[in-house]
Amino acid sequence: MVKHAGGAILPLYIDRSLNKPISVQICMGLRDLILTKRLKPGARMPSTRTLAVDLDVSRTTVVGAFEQLISEGILESRTGAGTFVSEAFAENYPEKIPPRKQRRRAPGAPPRLASVLSNAELHFSRRRPYPYKPKAFVSGLPAFDQFPLALWNRLSSKHWRASRNEVLSYDSPQGYTPLRQAIADYLGQFRGVSCSYEQIFVVSGAQQAFGLISGMLLNPGEEVWFENPGAIGARNSILSSGARLIPVPIDQDGIMVEEGLHRAPNFRLAFVTPSHQQPLGITMGLRRRLELLRAADAAKAWIIEDDYDGDFQYSSQPPPTLKSLDRSDRVFYVGTFSKSLFPSLRLGYIIVPRPLVEIFDHIFTAMLQGSPTSTQAVVAEFIREGHFASHLRRMRSIYQERQTVFYEAAKAKLAGLLDVYPMDTGFHSIGHLPDDADEYAVEQAAFDAGVAVAPIGHYCLEPLETKGLVLGFSSLTPSEIKAGMDDLASALCGPAGFRGTAAGNS
Amino acid sequence: MVKHAGGAILPLYIDRSLNKPISVQICMGLRDLILTKRLKPGARMPSTRTLAVDLDVSRTTVVGAFEQLISEGILESRTGAGTFVSEAFAENYPEKIPPRKQRRRAPGAPPRLASVLSNAELHFSRRRPYPYKPKAFVSGLPAFDQFPLALWNRLSSKHWRASRNEVLSYDSPQGYTPLRQAIADYLGQFRGVSCSYEQIFVVSGAQQAFGLISGMLLNPGEEVWFENPGAIGARNSILSSGARLIPVPIDQDGIMVEEGLHRAPNFRLAFVTPSHQQPLGITMGLRRRLELLRAADAAKAWIIEDDYDGDFQYSSQPPPTLKSLDRSDRVFYVGTFSKSLFPSLRLGYIIVPRPLVEIFDHIFTAMLQGSPTSTQAVVAEFIREGHFASHLRRMRSIYQERQTVFYEAAKAKLAGLLDVYPMDTGFHSIGHLPDDADEYAVEQAAFDAGVAVAPIGHYCLEPLETKGLVLGFSSLTPSEIKAGMDDLASALCGPAGFRGTAAGNS
Repeated sequence: MVKHAGGAILPLYIDRSLNKPISVQICMGLRDLILTKRLKPGARMPSTRTLAVDLDVSRTTVVGAFEQLISEGILESRTGAGTFVSEAFAENYPEKIPPRKQRRRAPGAPPRLASVLSNAELHFSRRRPYPYKPKAFVSGLPAFDQFPLALWNRLSSKHWRASRNEVLSYDSPQGYTPLRQAIADYLGQFRGVSCSYEQIFVVSGAQQAFGLISGMLLNPGEEVWFENPGAIGARNSILSSGARLIPVPIDQDGIMVEEGLHRAPNFRLAFVTPSHQQPLGITMGLRRRLELLRAADAAKAWIIEDDYDGDFQYSSQPPPTLKSLDRSDRVFYVGTFSKSLFPSLRLGYIIVPRPLVEIFDHIFTAMLQGSPTSTQAVVAEFIREGHFASHLRRMRSIYQERQTVFYEAAKAKLAGLLDVYPMDTGFHSIGHLPDDADEYAVEQAAFDAGVAVAPIGHYCLEPLETKGLVLGFSSLTPSEIKAGMDDLASALCGPAGFRGTAAGNS
Repeated sequence: MVKHAGGAILPLYIDRSLNKPISVQICMGLRDLILTKRLKPGARMPSTRTLAVDLDVSRTTVVGAFEQLISEGILESRTGAGTFVSEAFAENYPEKIPPRKQRRRAPGAPPRLASVLSNAELHFSRRRPYPYKPKAFVSGLPAFDQFPLALWNRLSSKHWRASRNEVLSYDSPQGYTPLRQAIADYLGQFRGVSCSYEQIFVVSGAQQAFGLISGMLLNPGEEVWFENPGAIGARNSILSSGARLIPVPIDQDGIMVEEGLHRAPNFRLAFVTPSHQQPLGITMGLRRRLELLRAADAAKAWIIEDDYDGDFQYSSQPPPTLKSLDRSDRVFYVGTFSKSLFPSLRLGYIIVPRPLVEIFDHIFTAMLQGSPTSTQAVVAEFIREGHFASHLRRMRSIYQERQTVFYEAAKAKLAGLLDVYPMDTGFHSIGHLPDDADEYAVEQAAFDAGVAVAPIGHYCLEPLETKGLVLGFSSLTPSEIKAGMDDLASALCGPAGFRGTAAGNS
């Protein structure tokens, strides 16, 4: 506290324990006093000497603060007369504003959002809290313990030693050209997709892709077929465009096209996960694929194919892509490096149908800035040097091994509690519960035992009769899988577990 | 070309010069023949032996391709009878689809965009083509030659050696916490802004920030005050939300608030560049700042403060921020590392007003995935270790020196052609032309002489009487500045230049 020139007390404090220069603290303190009218417009300031003594700081420090406020026009220096609070505050600022501390919580109604978004918000699905890390049985994470980080660091270091203009400048918002080319080559070789690099648009992850595509093509209220159950991130992103999601059920061949046509014949977009239905794990059958393509063609609708973990089949043949059958250029293929490399890369891509490439080019150039060059360049080099293909090969056998451990442990420890079936591909499995089970009670019991499981209900736009849990194994070592299975088994057997709440001793 | 089982000729080609495995080429070729009905549904395939001979490849290669197509359901193997094209194609696929080559260009009308976006597209401003690199007199780029890349590489390498779970996992979409904290600390120390780290939302650049804020808060058709002339990227991003941009003129104190109130009293958002008006370079006066804050408060409107190059003042005092005067929590402060560090980082941030933090938190968590952890972590460390503050200090004196060289050279070589005035801050200067000059003719003449200049008209939503060019100097060495000035002078003197097209021998 310091005395005002007129004798009043100024509540100005210095906290020497803060990592903030004292002159900045004085500056902010005075600005605050002026803005809250505790220092009145036109008032004479104490001299820098007085203030320095009162605050027990050097005079130079106070002079620095005054000079800053003078340069901002907040204080005015009149030669011979001293320093004054600007009269500007008299004219313009509302009289009574409570000091900042009391205003931390906004009073009254919360601020209004765009109506499209406030509608969307009502239907958002809960996502896991961030950051999330490997733990039994979190899904969707690759095996962090197996990633060749030393090699990665070497490539990264090589990148930063390249030409300054290459490394530092803006690259095109559509993506770093060598990466677009590497992706197009990879897709041709490994995913049966023939496309030119100009069709590849690099994005900061699959979820950005879904938001961009739907934002660019859909008007609010237009209908989107959405798998039920279906991907949570995609659901939220597509909702944010104002589109109306029409839940379309899944059978053993994938999304039920006929039911989709019945519910929303004028759909504008269909979101599907053909190679490994998210979360049920079904691979869409050929007939169903052709049926979906025909329906989209007839309705002039677009399709988003989310190939989120299609790189990881365990059988000898890679799962087919819908895009490889797409002769009418209706399919947006969306891929991600979050699973084939690692999530913190924040890198994915879209294959844009040819008729839309020019428009996407235009919009990306006008509105977007793209992903960091460094991450794109290192991924491009990782692919180009052949590390990507060999990493995927190695990871396939690791994931297959982990799935076997997972399945064997589940058979041994969860028999009668949860039915788990092996899958051909991917990072997770489904544990089926009796239809009358309470998935959320089971989730809670598992959580209390330190195990994360995701009820299928989380993935549903409309309730399903089938009950079950999504169980990830890809990021866990065999011993972590076994330990997690013990914990899960005890949770399911315990009084709060599923046997206690739902199906009894089934 | 190979013979069909029935004797017909199959147009199936292998190109050994391609970087694409032969079995993949066979696979794609057959899929294409089947999809285009040149191989009919139910048709018997030639034997793998015949195909191998006809294509002059090993039988194993053909077997691999067949296995892939069988796993996709496209071919069906009937024991003892051979391999057949699936009947699925008979039921589902439209009869006549021309082969892919002929369909490269979409026939007829271009596909429909979301109406908000197709309206926005009409008003998009042209942006420079990407990638863009240092060149006389491109604006908005930092001095690439001065960036401490070796130090950066060291910090990057250290990052990749940290704990795997830290380095590889998803971080929160709001931003990497140590970076949010480092930014909040920096803003408190150097920009007079007091905020908590929870208010800092990391984005992939200022332009994403503008798009997010307007998309989250504005309904289509709602009015936004926009400086005229004003920032091009911001204009496109805000337009994409469907908002209506109301051009508000600039005088010597910045945006003319009174005129804004006259044109659009019910504005929902104002976009401003108070510390260094983009592109005119004016610093908004204190009275005008308070007037703007009062107007926003009265209209319950928001303000975006784009502090795009506020880190680079040449005088002793940093320019003030609007946010430091914002007692009613109406101001979004947007900062970027594209200029203080380098553009390819793709990193910026928003200070979100306290009443909106919870909503932004919710929406970011539901819809966004954030920026790569690696770039965020290296920037955080760069700030934390003090390199950022010392880099800015060093760069300020370098930019000041470059501006002096620029200004002296302009005085010496452009006298009578272009009036250039020095500025207090920033990366560019304005060269004023006579009011009857044709900016675009001058731009073309300069371009022909190898010099990039941006007419102020590019930045305008409605035409200005004032004519001029935006001239960047920050990324150029003193000798590049002088050489560029020679080229510009000869362009302006030449027959196609400004003297030839507009003001004659003024």
